[in-house]
Amino acid sequence: NHVLVLGHGDLTEPILEELTGKSDVLILTGNEERTRRLSERGFTVLTADPSDEDSQHRARVESARAVVVATNNDAEDALAILTARQLNPEVTIVAAATQRENVNKLKRAGADTVISPATLGAHFLAESALGSTGVEELERRLMEGEPSEEDAEAQTVLDDEDET
Amino acid sequence: NHVLVLGHGDLTEPILEELTGKSDVLILTGNEERTRRLSERGFTVLTADPSDEDSQHRARVESARAVVVATNNDAEDALAILTARQLNPEVTIVAAATQRENVNKLKRAGADTVISPATLGAHFLAESALGSTGVEELERRLMEGEPSEEDAEAQTVLDDEDET
Ligand SMILES: [Ca+2]
Ligand SMILES: [Ca+2]
Repeated sequence: NHVLVLGHGDLTEPILEELTGKSDVLILTGNEERTRRLSERGFTVLTADPSDEDSQHRARVESARAVVVATNNDAEDALAILTARQLNPEVTIVAAATQRENVNKLKRAGADTVISPATLGAHFLAESALGSTGVEELERRLMEGEPSEEDAEAQTVLDDEDET
Repeated sequence: NHVLVLGHGDLTEPILEELTGKSDVLILTGNEERTRRLSERGFTVLTADPSDEDSQHRARVESARAVVVATNNDAEDALAILTARQLNPEVTIVAAATQRENVNKLKRAGADTVISPATLGAHFLAESALGSTGVEELERRLMEGEPSEEDAEAQTVLDDEDET
């Protein structure tokens, strides 16, 4: 009954922060250096190709409460979603489309919810520019879970590496 | 009483779509090719350095209802915000931090609201993974303003160029 995170990229990092303390999390990444760093920070990580059937089976996709797919590479994300959907037709799969035009492709691959951070950000910025005040309330809620300076530094280091 | 958009990048594009029909918009970009394409699509564009005092004066920052600063380059954004805040102490300035750790810097530069699309996207994906259904409602609202295939293609072409 864990959240299974397939691959690790810029966007996965704040997701991990949000999930911490709220659910068991298991991360699958093909990058050994990322595995080492994430393990040092206390995360449970398996080093294996996130879109591979055997890897996902070892990561117990069949018993996951949800699957998160949010690397910077939407093509890799699509493959990982197709595999997860095949192995577990019932699980909730949520995904992030790095390019806006890939939202529908990731849905067709089997994701239940696909977010485009660019579209979301644009929506709230436009509302804010036009005078909506709801954005500040949302911001305040988000700031409560804002990363510390040290987290931001760790993130910067990770940003320099290749992903998945 | 226009929304002044300082610079043009990946994130500015969906903001322009959201603002279209809701407010007069004036875009300031240093990139002539972007000016040409945006003009062809019916936007009002000035080709000039978005962080320059004289450019912002010509773009009537003093009478703008809001200023939007959301290129992919947070350092350029900071400069543009500092200039706009100096020329118009009262205007609402909204900005997007491409790197999460720059949120507070853009605020210190003078922005009233700073959004981190990555933090926003992570927030909604994590909520969705943990079983919140509010995300789907939000998604539905956003999908109503989703870009057409042609828009997505125009965006892809623009993505290949340098920004601001
Ligand atoms: Ca992605
Ligand atoms: Ca930015």
